Amino acid sequence: MSEKLIGACIFGQSGGPTAVINASAYGVIKTALEAGEITHVYGAAHGIKGVLDDKLYDMDLEDSYELSLLMNTPSSELGSCRYKMKPFEEDETDYIRILEIFKKYDVHYFFYNGGNDSMDTCNKISQYMQKVGYPCRVMGVPKTIDNDLFGTDHCPGFASAARYIATSCMEISKDARVYDTPMVTVIEVMGRHAGWLAGSAALATDKGSGPDLIYLPETDFDMEDFYSDVERIFNENGKVLVVVSEGIHYSDGTFVSEAKTSATDGFGHAQLGGLASMLAADLGNRLGTKVRGIELSLLQRCATHQASLTDLNEAFLVGQEAVLNAVNGTTDKMVALVRSFDENGNYVSKTELLPLSSVANYEKKVPLEWINEKHNGVTPEFIDYVKPLIQGDPEVVYEDSLPRYSRLKKIIASK
Amino acid sequence: MSEKLIGACIFGQSGGPTAVINASAYGVIKTALEAGEITHVYGAAHGIKGVLDDKLYDMDLEDSYELSLLMNTPSSELGSCRYKMKPFEEDETDYIRILEIFKKYDVHYFFYNGGNDSMDTCNKISQYMQKVGYPCRVMGVPKTIDNDLFGTDHCPGFASAARYIATSCMEISKDARVYDTPMVTVIEVMGRHAGWLAGSAALATDKGSGPDLIYLPETDFDMEDFYSDVERIFNENGKVLVVVSEGIHYSDGTFVSEAKTSATDGFGHAQLGGLASMLAADLGNRLGTKVRGIELSLLQRCATHQASLTDLNEAFLVGQEAVLNAVNGTTDKMVALVRSFDENGNYVSKTELLPLSSVANYEKKVPLEWINEKHNGVTPEFIDYVKPLIQGDPEVVYEDSLPRYSRLKKIIASK
Repeated sequence: MSEKLIGACIFGQSGGPTAVINASAYGVIKTALEAGEITHVYGAAHGIKGVLDDKLYDMDLEDSYELSLLMNTPSSELGSCRYKMKPFEEDETDYIRILEIFKKYDVHYFFYNGGNDSMDTCNKISQYMQKVGYPCRVMGVPKTIDNDLFGTDHCPGFASAARYIATSCMEISKDARVYDTPMVTVIEVMGRHAGWLAGSAALATDKGSGPDLIYLPETDFDMEDFYSDVERIFNENGKVLVVVSEGIHYSDGTFVSEAKTSATDGFGHAQLGGLASMLAADLGNRLGTKVRGIELSLLQRCATHQASLTDLNEAFLVGQEAVLNAVNGTTDKMVALVRSFDENGNYVSKTELLPLSSVANYEKKVPLEWINEKHNGVTPEFIDYVKPLIQGDPEVVYEDSLPRYSRLKKIIASK
Repeated sequence: MSEKLIGACIFGQSGGPTAVINASAYGVIKTALEAGEITHVYGAAHGIKGVLDDKLYDMDLEDSYELSLLMNTPSSELGSCRYKMKPFEEDETDYIRILEIFKKYDVHYFFYNGGNDSMDTCNKISQYMQKVGYPCRVMGVPKTIDNDLFGTDHCPGFASAARYIATSCMEISKDARVYDTPMVTVIEVMGRHAGWLAGSAALATDKGSGPDLIYLPETDFDMEDFYSDVERIFNENGKVLVVVSEGIHYSDGTFVSEAKTSATDGFGHAQLGGLASMLAADLGNRLGTKVRGIELSLLQRCATHQASLTDLNEAFLVGQEAVLNAVNGTTDKMVALVRSFDENGNYVSKTELLPLSSVANYEKKVPLEWINEKHNGVTPEFIDYVKPLIQGDPEVVYEDSLPRYSRLKKIIASK
C-alpha cells in the first residue's frame, strides 16, 4: 500500500465525443466525490484547455441526480478539445501553467478521458510532474468510437456506435428494398484508419437485414473490384446495399473520398464528407439505376438512446477504476478493458491497468484475418468479437418521451 | 345493419414506407383473419402492382407470432409501389385486370394503406366496382411521414418520424457544441411541400437541446434573411444549428435545393439531396467557419426502434377499424384520426370515417399562424400539436440487442 495522497482532482474530456463518454465522466466524478482522499472535484472546461485557461467547474456543487443523468447524455458534457501538447523538453510553457493551476487548486489527481492523443497528454503531464517533484497521480480513461486504441480489448464508445450502426443498417436495409425497382444504396460510416465501425454493419447482415458488401480501410480499395462486386449483386437481385468506411483508400494511399474535390460542390469544403454520395452517383451512372448515398455522420457517435448497456456500464467502470486505483497509489496508467467470460460462457467486463506510455500514439486496426478474402466483408470472428459488446438496452430517462439530459450548473471554481 | 358480405380480402401497402406502416398491416391482417365474414386474407406484393401481377401472399399461412412482429418491423413488409392509375373512363385495362383477380380469389374486401395517391387509387377502384356491379368494400388506411394527408388530424407514420427527428436533433445539438471553436451545422429533413417534420425539430429546442433556426416550405425562403439569421446567432455564441425542410423554396417557387445542380458532383443526380451540404458550405464560405451538413435521409422514416408508441398503436388502430367497419357494411371511407382528450386532459386516440373522395389528392400544410413571424421557427401551438403524438416508448423486441424483425413466409397464393 502506497502513501496516502490527499488533494483535489481534475477531470477532463478530450477528442471527439461518444454516446457514452459522459458515463465515464460520471464514473470518475461520482467515485472521486465519494473518495476520502480526494478533497475536491473539478471538471475542466474543454479538457486540458480548461486547465490552461483556469476554467474549472466545481463538481462538488452539482446536484447528484443531475450528475447521474450523465449516463443518459451524449457528447462531452464538460466540453472537449483537440489540443496537442508539445514535449516539455521542447516548450515548457503549458506545463508550467498546468503546474501553477494544480498548485492553485491543490490538485494531486488528474484524470483524462480520451483516445490516443489524450493518453499522450496524460503521459507528458505525469512525466513533467515527476520531473519537477510535484506529487500527482495521473490516470487515463479510454474512449473512442473508432476502437483503435492500443492495448485495450475494446474501447468505451465503440460498442454503442456499433449498435447504432447495425440497427440503422437493419432499418435502411428494409427501407431500401421496399420497391420492386432497382436501387443501389451506399452508407458511409466513420473510421479514418480502422474499420471497426464499418465492419460492425455486418451485425445487421448477420440478422438477415444488412449490407451486401462492406469495405474497410485496412485493405487497399480497388475501384474495378468494387464495381464488379456491386454489379454482380445488382444483376442477381436488383438491390445492393454497400457500407464503406470513410477511410477507404487506393493502394497508393490516396483516400477514395479525396476524388470528391474534383467533383466538389464548388465550395471545396473537404470536411463535408460526401464519399457515399460520390460512390452512389458513380454507380448510378454505371448501372443506370436509382441510387442513394447516406452518411451516418455525427449521429453514429452521439446516439445515446440506442447505446449498448454493456458499453455504458464499461464506460462508467473505467472511470470508477481510474479513481479507485489512483487513490490506492497507482499512477501513469490507463484503465483497459479485458475480454473475459464466466463459467457459463457469458461475457464479463473486466479491467486491467496498462502503462500510459505503452498505449499512447499507437493505433489498433482490424486484424487482416478478420476481413474476408475478397476484401468486401468481415469474417464470423469479427462478429463474435463485437457481439458481446453491444448487448443490453440502456435505461434511457425520458421526459415527454424525449431524452432527459443532465443539466449541470457548471459553476466556475474560484480561488 | 347492412347485408353480410362474405369473401376474401386483399391488403396492400403503397408509397414511401414509414416506421409504423407494418403496424397498420398487422391491424388489418390480424383483424381480417379473425373476422368471420372474411374467408381468406391476401397480402398484395408491392401494393396494387401485386394485384395486377397476380402476386398475392397467402396471409392465412403465416405464423401468428411472426405477424405480431410486424409491430417491430420498419418499411413496408409486403413491398410497396408508386403506381398511379389512370381514370377508368380513360383507360379501363387495369380495372378489368383487378376485377379479374378479385373474381379469381373471390375478393370482396380491399384495404389499401398509403397517402394521397393511394386514397385516390382506392376511390377509383371502388367506383369501378360499383359501376360494374361487383360487390366490394374498399377502405383506405392512412400513412405518411409527411403528415400532409387531408382530413385526418394527423397521420400514422408522422409522429414516429417526428420523435426520431427530435431525438436526433437533441443528440446532434449536444455533439455539435462540444468544442469551444465556431461551428455551423445544417440538418436537412424530409418534407417537400409540408413542414411538419422540419417543425418537429422544435421539440428538441423545447427540451433545451435543439436547433436555433428552422425553415419550413410553407413560407418563401429568402437567402439574405437566412444569412442574417445565422450570422446573428453565430456572432452571439459561435455555434449555430439549423434545420431545413428539403422543400424550402424561393418566392418564385424554385426549390433552394435545385441550385445544387449548378454546383453538382458532376454526375447530376438530383435525387442525392445535398441541400444541407450546400447550405453548410455556403455558410462556411461566408462566415469563414467550420460547417457540417447532415441529411437524416431514409433513417427518419424507418427508425422503428425510436418510434412513438402512440403512433404505433394508432397505426394498428386505423388498420383494425378499416376491417371492422368494412365487415359492418362501410365502404369508400378512409379511417381518420381525431384529436381528443379524456376528462383529465390526457390525449386519447379516436378515429372517424371520411369519404375517400374528400381526402384524395389534397395536401395539408402547417398553418401559417403556427410559423413564427420571422419564418425561422414554429410557435408553441405547433409544439402542443405534436407533443401528445410522440408519446410512449415502443416495446422493441430484441434478439442479441438488435431488432428482431418479422420473418414472413410470403407464400404466393395460387388458384
